[in-house]
Formats: sequence, structure tokens, C-alpha cells
Amino acid sequence: MPHAAQPSGTVVAEGHLIDSQLLTGIFDLVIERGGAFEVLAFAIGRTNDEFSRLTLKISAPDEAALTSLLEALIPLGCHAAVEENAVVRVADRDRTAPEEFYSTTNQRTQVRLDGRWIDVGRQRMDAAIVVTEAGAECRKLRDLRSGDRVVCGLAGIRVMPEFRDRDRADFAFMSNDVSSERRVEASVARIARMMRDVKAGGRRIAFVAGPVLVHTGGVPYFARLVRGGFVDVLLSGNALAVHDAEFALFNTSLGVDLDAGTPVAGGHRHHMRAINIVNRAGGVAAAVRSGVLSSGVMFECVRAGVPIVLAGSVRDDGPLADTITDIVEAQDRYAAALEGVGLVIVLSTMLHGIGVGNMLPAWVPVVCVDINPAVVTKLADRGSSQTIGLVTDVGLFLHQLAGQLA
Amino acid sequence: MPHAAQPSGTVVAEGHLIDSQLLTGIFDLVIERGGAFEVLAFAIGRTNDEFSRLTLKISAPDEAALTSLLEALIPLGCHAAVEENAVVRVADRDRTAPEEFYSTTNQRTQVRLDGRWIDVGRQRMDAAIVVTEAGAECRKLRDLRSGDRVVCGLAGIRVMPEFRDRDRADFAFMSNDVSSERRVEASVARIARMMRDVKAGGRRIAFVAGPVLVHTGGVPYFARLVRGGFVDVLLSGNALAVHDAEFALFNTSLGVDLDAGTPVAGGHRHHMRAINIVNRAGGVAAAVRSGVLSSGVMFECVRAGVPIVLAGSVRDDGPLADTITDIVEAQDRYAAALEGVGLVIVLSTMLHGIGVGNMLPAWVPVVCVDINPAVVTKLADRGSSQTIGLVTDVGLFLHQLAGQLA
Amino acid sequence: MPHAAQPSGTVVAEGHLIDSQLLTGIFDLVIERGGAFEVLAFAIGRTNDEFSRLTLKISAPDEAALTSLLEALIPLGCHAAVEENAVVRVADRDRTAPEEFYSTTNQRTQVRLDGRWIDVGRQRMDAAIVVTEAGAECRKLRDLRSGDRVVCGLAGIRVMPEFRDRDRADFAFMSNDVSSERRVEASVARIARMMRDVKAGGRRIAFVAGPVLVHTGGVPYFARLVRGGFVDVLLSGNALAVHDAEFALFNTSLGVDLDAGTPVAGGHRHHMRAINIVNRAGGVAAAVRSGVLSSGVMFECVRAGVPIVLAGSVRDDGPLADTITDIVEAQDRYAAALEGVGLVIVLSTMLHGIGVGNMLPAWVPVVCVDINPAVVTKLADRGSSQTIGLVTDVGLFLHQLAGQLA
Amino acid sequence: MPHAAQPSGTVVAEGHLIDSQLLTGIFDLVIERGGAFEVLAFAIGRTNDEFSRLTLKISAPDEAALTSLLEALIPLGCHAAVEENAVVRVADRDRTAPEEFYSTTNQRTQVRLDGRWIDVGRQRMDAAIVVTEAGAECRKLRDLRSGDRVVCGLAGIRVMPEFRDRDRADFAFMSNDVSSERRVEASVARIARMMRDVKAGGRRIAFVAGPVLVHTGGVPYFARLVRGGFVDVLLSGNALAVHDAEFALFNTSLGVDLDAGTPVAGGHRHHMRAINIVNRAGGVAAAVRSGVLSSGVMFECVRAGVPIVLAGSVRDDGPLADTITDIVEAQDRYAAALEGVGLVIVLSTMLHGIGVGNMLPAWVPVVCVDINPAVVTKLADRGSSQTIGLVTDVGLFLHQLAGQLA
Repeated sequence: MPHAAQPSGTVVAEGHLIDSQLLTGIFDLVIERGGAFEVLAFAIGRTNDEFSRLTLKISAPDEAALTSLLEALIPLGCHAAVEENAVVRVADRDRTAPEEFYSTTNQRTQVRLDGRWIDVGRQRMDAAIVVTEAGAECRKLRDLRSGDRVVCGLAGIRVMPEFRDRDRADFAFMSNDVSSERRVEASVARIARMMRDVKAGGRRIAFVAGPVLVHTGGVPYFARLVRGGFVDVLLSGNALAVHDAEFALFNTSLGVDLDAGTPVAGGHRHHMRAINIVNRAGGVAAAVRSGVLSSGVMFECVRAGVPIVLAGSVRDDGPLADTITDIVEAQDRYAAALEGVGLVIVLSTMLHGIGVGNMLPAWVPVVCVDINPAVVTKLADRGSSQTIGLVTDVGLFLHQLAGQLA
Repeated sequence: MPHAAQPSGTVVAEGHLIDSQLLTGIFDLVIERGGAFEVLAFAIGRTNDEFSRLTLKISAPDEAALTSLLEALIPLGCHAAVEENAVVRVADRDRTAPEEFYSTTNQRTQVRLDGRWIDVGRQRMDAAIVVTEAGAECRKLRDLRSGDRVVCGLAGIRVMPEFRDRDRADFAFMSNDVSSERRVEASVARIARMMRDVKAGGRRIAFVAGPVLVHTGGVPYFARLVRGGFVDVLLSGNALAVHDAEFALFNTSLGVDLDAGTPVAGGHRHHMRAINIVNRAGGVAAAVRSGVLSSGVMFECVRAGVPIVLAGSVRDDGPLADTITDIVEAQDRYAAALEGVGLVIVLSTMLHGIGVGNMLPAWVPVVCVDINPAVVTKLADRGSSQTIGLVTDVGLFLHQLAGQLA
Repeated sequence: MPHAAQPSGTVVAEGHLIDSQLLTGIFDLVIERGGAFEVLAFAIGRTNDEFSRLTLKISAPDEAALTSLLEALIPLGCHAAVEENAVVRVADRDRTAPEEFYSTTNQRTQVRLDGRWIDVGRQRMDAAIVVTEAGAECRKLRDLRSGDRVVCGLAGIRVMPEFRDRDRADFAFMSNDVSSERRVEASVARIARMMRDVKAGGRRIAFVAGPVLVHTGGVPYFARLVRGGFVDVLLSGNALAVHDAEFALFNTSLGVDLDAGTPVAGGHRHHMRAINIVNRAGGVAAAVRSGVLSSGVMFECVRAGVPIVLAGSVRDDGPLADTITDIVEAQDRYAAALEGVGLVIVLSTMLHGIGVGNMLPAWVPVVCVDINPAVVTKLADRGSSQTIGLVTDVGLFLHQLAGQLA
Repeated sequence: MPHAAQPSGTVVAEGHLIDSQLLTGIFDLVIERGGAFEVLAFAIGRTNDEFSRLTLKISAPDEAALTSLLEALIPLGCHAAVEENAVVRVADRDRTAPEEFYSTTNQRTQVRLDGRWIDVGRQRMDAAIVVTEAGAECRKLRDLRSGDRVVCGLAGIRVMPEFRDRDRADFAFMSNDVSSERRVEASVARIARMMRDVKAGGRRIAFVAGPVLVHTGGVPYFARLVRGGFVDVLLSGNALAVHDAEFALFNTSLGVDLDAGTPVAGGHRHHMRAINIVNRAGGVAAAVRSGVLSSGVMFECVRAGVPIVLAGSVRDDGPLADTITDIVEAQDRYAAALEGVGLVIVLSTMLHGIGVGNMLPAWVPVVCVDINPAVVTKLADRGSSQTIGLVTDVGLFLHQLAGQLA
């Protein structure tokens, strides 16, 4: 029960508060942070379809703690019962924000300007909100310019957490924890259905893949996905393209013959030769056009017109002429490619998977496939309930998936 | 170079000393343990087929260190240049050996009795060697009886390490390290070929499996292996049988519907119900005969006459009437079932896999499949180069394997 | 909204329904299993201290589905709004239950007999409930005898799930997920505080440990815990005792000198020698009394009068004379030793950790320390929110813990 | 035995062929690749100090296979018995090599020019060898310029593999496999000794660290290493600096209070605030000078004059002004910083660890500490026997290490 003598405030939240565990989260947070609460009103949704609505009085030992607590409640969908406009301050130098800037989550967000709630565009996490003539949108700190009008503090900000939808066919599936002790075939069938649904809905599917796709023998199956129209964009790094080219040119991956499973003579030099050959040809697309590359992931994507974005990293060999060596540019290219996708499938790459996760709004589902449960857990932890983890071999996964989608 | 003033001895080793890395191992060991060596003679095999032969003088700081060093060299195939008879002492009480008893490795071993080298029977690791009227054989400490004649010390003992055979088709494959970044399909093809070869040679194949076989959807594929005659004995524990029965009776595994991938109502009680039902029927075989069980791993094995040995453990529910609750008896039953097998395939069970590894002679190849690389490494570390590790999903592995063997 | 035409029932639940996520769980379950619900009444706890109370009408497509659904809701604390007596049937043969027996969870349970709700004794999961003259208690299937009166079906059963207590100091800590990216020192401080609290409350602490305790150098630190009175019972297997004896006798663990970190000559035989020596001495306690063992985990426990229970397994070498080879007896001895403990600490042993988890009621907190996150996750999954996982090195953990408790 | 009818060649190798397992490797390789060999001469080192010398005739089915086989033998120290000069071709365009360029390993290499063997400078793997006026040196493909004289083919190239030195104190330690079942304290003592030896020898120590250093509470212990003079350069990425600044400014890491082990209100925004604050201050060094940062890893390094190189990646937040966003520049800066280091210690960062491994010559020892054995294995696999892996918690490792070095 709030202390009468302590500073207090009243917040409101509404939606599927129970199924989405928001109600639990709200109460937990208040207690964890040393506050107290009193339920002023709670109207429970009588059926699965109805919303619930909570009005909550919150107190904390001092004003600073109360502010911090109210801030922490925003991502859980709480907003002040009394509506205020957002506070906007002008950035005084390029690439930095006023100190008290509001840092976004990846949930749908609205700001109140001149008495009206407006949607924030280009939603992503860890951005500032800039008010423009056209409205408001997320902008990374490095893209701020002196003079930009930046939303500060907590007033006039409203977040609408993704509600879990119990009626969705994949509800239980999406709620599953990460485990390697699962029947993969059932999970693949679900993912195949999600992919068909996304395509049927006219939305795009992005794949984010590491070189393990090649090492584990996934190339022919991924090629079938591309030909089937299930790959709309491929986000990766230098290594996938290098090992794909090595496989196309020498039939090895890291010098290992994938049919025999054994190293071949001189194979450890194949990936450097592959880089040199592709670069001599003028890059991946030119190598495909000139017939230097006539099979593989890159070949299929170029032929099908699927855009490929390769982000560089400090461990790259070469790199290929196509690899974007500046990571700020690479992030911008990734973000542009992800605009409006309906599904993201991450295959064995923690680095690029986290990069993509940072950019996505909370409502885009992500499937993460890796044989290492720690990677799956780490990717799932970053997002919300939007991530489905599958602990299995990527080559066999693609084999099964291509079969299901055939 | 051995110190003139230090105690020294001369040993001989012969065989594929280079390819099997015995030569390296011998030299390393001497230096690691603070000794010194001088190569008195070394005849290298000129071609891949020829044996090499080494005569080595070894010194150590004192007699105890020399003895310890010579002992450590035995498993590497070194034996004293001057041949002596083995020392035999009589056990003075049941279940324990004389303190200086020779504890075996899993390599082929000979003892010298009355001037003749004879083979030690029932080779396994961590046993004593008992001299009987018929010859000599490995015997576990707990099976020793007062009056048994036990080989002690190091004299008159000769170990013949398994040589790696470079000409064997699977040489490079067998030498592979554990990695999840491999093309599983290539490895499965090799394993399928090994299985056909073993069967063609008239030898038996033992499977050692944990309940993950059921959880990951492997049951129908394992059933095909049984029907194809590729399973000669199944070693497992209570859990596999329980979850197999649960799947046969309720179509769930740990309460999860394997087709839908989701839990079903009351499913968490299914495994206890399954135990009760099977036990009411009088055990697994009776349940199959009476039609209570009409599908699954147990059903297929019973129908095909494949012996099943279920070893109990402290985490068992139930247990089933078939589960051997005394682990000494279970080990004996395992060991009897493994007599003369030509290949062992371990599917996701560290506990039973280690148990089996303890019993096998070094010349029986072991394939170990687990999605956790640490398990594969641990099983591989215990044996010699005999173990092939494969890091992948057991359900998909069995799917592929059944396809390859169809 | 429940279909008017479908069979329906009304259930009641009360308690900390929101913080313990029971409300979410109840609604989710109904939808997942194809049912529908209508909230007839919901009184929310206005403050953190107050209980909430829910009255819920539930429908399902047919009577069987409804029964199954109502059964699944029991562990979430739902019981029929209309109270009935439990149905009791007589077991018709030893070691098996009537088919429709109620299989317990590890949560506090009551049964209604002759119009009165009585507590079920010896609460554990996966047991039957037997009605005796004195009341009702959990009994394993194998302990049932013909003539026992067994609770069947769902009527007259009430489960009180453990409520998470937000006011407990360790609330947030207990809610943490498994991660290796944590500051271990902070977690150790919490665990040390829990241990002091448990002892101050007059309750006992059970350790469940694998041989990794020895391999990772934890022996001297564990010894300090024993001497400090923080170990009331030690549950383990043969391997811990063997490697502890090996370390005490030869200063090696699996043949590795723990100071130098390198193998010593003949070391691979040390564990077999250790078994033989201890068994010759007449077992662990006799070996301590006669001075054969003069340091180590076993020595400290024997000297301090801490009971040790060693459960056998199929991978055991030896075994030691002290190892209980029958796993049914071992389970019974474990269960007796755990009677009334206030805290369980599991150190790197999945096998014994799961065994213990099966026996514990839900209200005993369990700390699980393992360097493999998969083990921690697996142990945590089995229980409820009672398990705290810590991913770290056991040797360093014990070093820190002994320091904190000094 | 080589076929008389097949093409053949004769190679020579000398050195510690047995202890370094080169002899085994050479023979294995010939057989694996379908060739045959005949030992023309083998002089074994009689003692541990003496070199061995091998002359080997090799045949293969055709000229292409023979060339490929001879090429594969180069890294094992084999060179043609008949000495030829290296073939040098002129690069015809920037950033690419002639197709038949020789791609280097990280082992010491010599090329024969005008009848003289000269050392190749700046040894690293996956580079071309460019002949300059001053001699010959490794150069990455992207640094090649039209007109550069590039070594092609295999003639006139000689590689001197690192020999394992059995007499080195840490010989056995260095040979250890990766395992989490080790006594970490013993390993830390060895590493501390190596660090003292390297510093006593006047060489530098490079640390390569990920943000887990901060999350696991390692900051105060790392600070002690910096103050003790044991850190000569720090190679990392954006995340370490961000989380270090977050910890210095807010006492949290990823929003978690490291003392309490629990999240604090608003903590998820701390890392973005930290980036903004440091960037407003003009970067890390400026933030230290102006007192904005007054503790932490960055603070200590700046104060002690330890160079910090932060390489960007696609998952970076911000990034900080100090982060090098172009990965080609970052690689060059890493390589320059690593010039002449005597020891590299990698703490929980696969990305930067692999990047560093790509640049190092084979004779620089690398210690890799990670709680995930797969990371340790992956880093160890890339190098040679130079990598020591330690599976443990980074925070506790640094705690122990700082204690040992105090």
C-alpha cells in the first residue's frame, strides 16, 4: 500500500494485460524497485477477446525513485493517468542527444504533441525520438544533427507492448522455451507454415546466415528456397560469401570436401583463392554474370534478383569487393533491407543476428536456428516473445525445410 | 641422453609407431615425467605397410621413478627388452586385490607365464588380470575371490595398442575432431557404410540410447533400423522405455504432443500412467504380447527378438518392472550383451555411454551422436581413437540414417 | 466465452495469482487446450500483501476434454467451486495403482475426505496418494501394496502452488534466468546469505555433488564448509568418493596432479588402487577411523558426523563398499536424508541433481551450480521457480563461498 | 610404396619431427590424398635435443595430384630435395594476386631468390608473399598493388613449423586439451608465470577482451593488472568500452547492478546514455581527462598510457567516437598493435579473438579464456599448438590472476 507520506503518481494500462504477463510485470517491478502500489481499479477481460484495464497508484521513497519507477513502467504499457505533452529539446551538436533524451524500446510508441498522440515512425530500440514537420520518428544517436528536436524525459510517451495472441495457431509454439530435446520435424513444419503465411500476406522474408550454412551442407537446400521464392533478402557477412564461392569453385568448405567429409590437398588455401578469383572478376554479381560462379547461395540470389548485404567484421579474410567494410554503412544497409519484412530467419550467426535484432520492431517474428543453445538463448533474450529458437543442425534444418516447402 | 649415474632400463616397441603417434607419445612421456631417453635403434617402416621397430634406453632419477615410467609406457606398447615372467600373487580376501595388482587398459594385453606369452581374455579397462587353469582373463575387483591368482607389478605384461590403419576407407573420417560445423549427411553416409560392413562381416551392432531418441521424434526411424536388422542389442535405462511407452500409449513424450510440438492436457502425468500400465501388464514383453504396447522402440525390439537391457539409475521414475535396479547386475548384463559386438552406436546418453565405454575393448569402434559437443568430447576422451563423434540432433540423425540404409 | 452448448464447469482459485503468474497460466491453458472461459468474478489484491480471488467458468468441446482441462488446472491452484469428496479405490495388486490414480505434483496438496480437507504428507512429485488411518500421504507406485486405498480421479483434490514472495530479499535474484554473463561474486554472496539464514532458522542444508568437485580443486574449500557446519548431509555417487580417495591417497584426480595440472606416471591406475585400498580397509568410515584416509571430502564428513549417501550407477568403477548398488534402496535413502531440509545445493551432477529434484517438495529452494548452462537449465526446468542456477566453475565457486562464509 | 609408373618427387624435412607430430602428419597426408611414399632415409634424433632428418619419395596418380600433395606438405616442413628458386609474377591489377599466388600459413617461411634462402617478413596466415628490394614479406591481398612482385606456385618455398619444445616448463600444460573439469587455480598459476616471464624478457602482453569482462565483475581485477604493468595493449570492440563506461557512470552493466545482481530502474537505457555522455565529452580519452570517466578499464588504460584499439561490428550500439568503424582500418590498427607481442590473452570474445588469431605468427602463444568450451575449441583449432584454452568464468579468472600477480 503506498505510503501516504511518499511521493506518488497514478498510471493506467490497458490491453491483454494478463496473457501478456504485463500485469505481473508491472506489480513485480514496483516491488523490486522498492515502491508500493494500490490498485485503484481493475476491470478484467471476461473472455479471451476482451481487454483488461488497470488504474494503479504508485509511491516511492523519493521523487527521483518515483520518476525512475514510472520510466521503467513505460515499456510495460503504463502511461500517466493525467496526459501531458512530450518535452522536446533541441540538440546542440551533431551525433549527440540532450542528456535526458528518451531512449526507445522496439515496441510501438506514441508521443503526445500539442494534445494529440501520434505514432513514432521507424520504430527500433536504443534510438532517440526526433520530432519533424511530418511527425516523429526513431533516429540513432549518430544520425542526430544539431538543431534536431529530440523528445526528452518521460512525459507524453506511451508504449504499446506487443500482446501475445492466444488465438494464433502458433501461440503455444511461440511460447516454447529453447531446448534441444524437441522433435525438430514438428518445429520445421510450423516454420514452413509461417513462411507460406507471410508470403501469402504479401510480406517479405529476410534470411540472416553465417558460413555454417555452407559447412553443414545447406547450400543445395537453401538454393531451393531461393528458387521457390522464399528468400526476399539475404543479410550476412564476408565469410558466407567466401565459403560459398569456395564451395562453388572447389567443392570444398574450409578446405574440407563436403561429400567425403575429409580435407583435400591444398584445401586450406581455397578460401583465399576464391576471394582472389571473385575479386578479379569484379565482385560477386560480375562473377555470376561472367560465369565464374555458376552455383551456390550467391549465384542463386544474384540470378533470382535477391538483394545480398554483406557486413564486414574484424575477422574477415580478404574481404570480397562486395563486403561493406564500414559498419555504420553496413547497419544502414541492413536496416533499409529489413524495412517492412514480415519474418526473419537467422541461421547460425550470433553476430549478424544480434545486429538485425537491434533494428527490428518488436512485432516482426524472428526464427533463430543454431546448434548451440547459448546462441539461441542470447538472441531470444534480446527481443521479446517474438523470437522462436530451434536448437539443431543448420544443414539438416534446411534439408527438412526445403522438403516441407517443396 | 640418459644419465650414466641414473637407474635405467631398455624397452622395445614395434608396429605402426608413427601413424599411431606412439613414437611421439613414448618420447613425450619420458620427458614429461622427468626421465631421459636414448634411441638405441630405430628401423622405420619404409612404406605404409611396414612396421617400425624401436629400441630405447630410458633413465630416471631413482628406481621408483623408473618403475613408474616403465609402467606408464606399457599402454604405449613398450615392453622390457629382457623378458620376464609375470608376477602372480594370491588374493587374500574376496572383492579386493593385492595392493600392487596390475590394473588393465582396454587394449589387447598379453601376460608371460612360464616363459610363454598368452592372450588375456575378456579385455576391458580397470580390471585385474586373473590367471586361471585355462589362461588369463580380466576380472573386475568386485568379482575377485580369495584364492584368485592375480597378476601384480609390471613384469611380464605386454600391451598391443590398436594401430590406426591408414588404408581403411574411414581412416580420415575416424580421425576427425568433434565439430558441429560439419556436413552431417556425409558423416551419416559413412556410418551407414560401417553398419553394412559390420553386418556383412557377421558381427553385431549394439545401440545405446537415451530418451532423447523419443523426444526428438526418432522412434519411427529407429523402428526401421530394427526391422532392417541393424539393431542387435539395445542398451538403455528406465527413461527410454518409459517415454517410449508414453509415446506408444498417449502419443506424447514428457507430455508434449510430438506432432504439434505442444503440451497436452494432463500430459505431465502420462509417463507415470505409462509405467503403471506396463507394470500392470507384467512388464514390457508381456505388454507387447498382450497388445497393450503396439508400437515404438520396445515393441519393435520385442517383436524382432532384439534383447533390451535397461539399467536403473537414481533419477528413475517407477521404475518399470524390466529395469534392473541393481547396478552391479546391470553392468554384468550390459557386458554380456556386448560380448563380441562389432560396432556400438551411442545416441544421446552420457550415463549409459560411459558405462558401455568402460566395458569395451579398444578395438570396437564407437559412434557417439549428441547435440551437446561436451558429451561427444567426454565420450571420445575416454576411449582411444576408436570413437567417432557427431554433433547433431538425434531425431534428424536417425531420419537420415534410416534413409541411407533403406 | 464458453459455448452455451458445450459442457462446462466452474473453478475457484485464490492467492497471489498475479505475481505467481497463475492467472496467466490458467487463461493460457484453457485456450491452448481448445477450451473457453468466462470470468464470473475477480477480486484483485489491492496491495502486494492481499490475495486475489478468481471464479471462472470453463467450457470444452466434450466431457473428456473438459475433464482433462480441469485436471490440468489443478496444479495451478484451481479447484471445483462445488466441493466433493475424493474418490478412493483399492489397489488390486502390489506395486501398481488403479489406472485412474491421481499422480501428484511437488506442490502442497490437500484431499477432501468425509467433507474435510486434509493435508497430504510426504509431498513429492509423481506419486500416488494413499489414504491411511492417520490421514493421506504420497507413495511411490512401487511402494503400493494390494489393499492400499488410492485417491483416483480429480474430485476432492486441491493444490496450493508455491507463491512467489515479492517481499523476500532474494525475490529478484530467484527470478533470474540462467546466464554465464553474470557477476558470480554477487550471486555467491546471496547464496552465502541464504545458507546462513537456513542454519539460523534451525534447518539443514543438503549438498549434492559430483566428482567435478574434486577435479576442479574444490576439496579444501568444501572441507571448510563441512568444518563450518554448513553441510548437513552429502548426497552423491560412487565417483565423488573414488576421486576424493584418489586425491587423498595420491594427490591426483583422474591421474592428474591438481597442483601441477599435469598427469603423473601411472596415474590412470590411481582410482582403481584407491577403490581397492578403501575396500580393503572395510569402506570409507573404516578407512577414516584406521587412518587410511586422512584428508578430503569423505574424511571431513566422517569426522564431522555428516551422513553420506552414495547412489550407484551403471558407469561406476568398483564400486566402493559404501556405494548403494540397488537404486531403489538408494532413492529411499536419499529421500530419508532429505526429509525436512531447508536448502539443497547441487554441484555439477545432473544425474543426482535430477534424482533429488524428483523427491523434493516445491517449497525447498535448490541452488544448482554447473559450468554447463544446459545442465542448469535442465535442473531448473524440472522444478518450479524454486531453482537458482549459477553457471560457473565449481572449484572457484567453492573457493568464493568458503571465503564468504568464513 | 610409390608406383614406378606414377609421377614422383623427393622431399626433405628436418627438425623435431617426432615430438611435433610432423612425421605422423606427413605420412598421414600422403595416404589420405591417395599417394604413396617410400622412406629413402631417416635419421632419428637419438636424444630429446637432437633433430631428426627424413628423405621421402612420394608418388601420386597424376601430375596434378602430385603437385597438390607436395603443396600440402609444405606447411609440415617438407621442401623439395632439389632446390629451385621461387617463381615470381607481377600483379596486373590492384588488390588481387596472380591466380597461382602462394597463400601463406602463419609459420616461419623462407623463399629462395637468386639461389639464396631469405626470411619472409611480417609473417601471418592467408597472405601473399611480395618480393621487394629489401627482401620478401607477407602482404594481404587487399594491399597488393599493380606491379607488385608476387611469389607463385610452390617452388623455392620452405616452411619451418613451430616445434613443440618438450623441455619447456609448460610443455605438458600447453598440450592439454580443453576441459571444464580442471582445477583452474593451477592453470592460473601457470599463466601468471608465463606473464611474468614474458615481461621479464622485455616483451609485451596484449589483451583481447569482450564485454563479458564487465558483466562478470572483472573490472577491478583487470584494473590491477593494468596498474601492475601487465597490459601493454588492449584490443577490443565497441561493446567493452560502452559497458565499461556504463559501469563507471551508473554502476550497472546491461542495466544490472553488479553488486546486487539485479536490474535497476531505467537500467536498460544506461548503455545508450553512457555512449551519449562519452561522445559529448569528445571520446574516451577526453572523457578521462575531463573527469567524466573516473574508473574502469578505459580509465585505467588511458591513465597508464595503454593503447586501446576498438574495432567496430555490425551489432554495435552508438558507436563510441573511438570505435573504428571501417574494419579494414581496424585490422590494420590491430596488426600494428600486435607487432612483436610475446603473449596474447583472449577473454570471452570469439569475434576479436579470431581476428587476432588471423594476424599472429605461429610462435606467439595465445591464452583463451571463455566459459563456453566451443569458443575455446574454435580458437584453439585455428592456430597450432600455440593456444592454451581455459574453460571458466572470466570474472573469477581475473580475480585469481590479479591475486597471483599481486
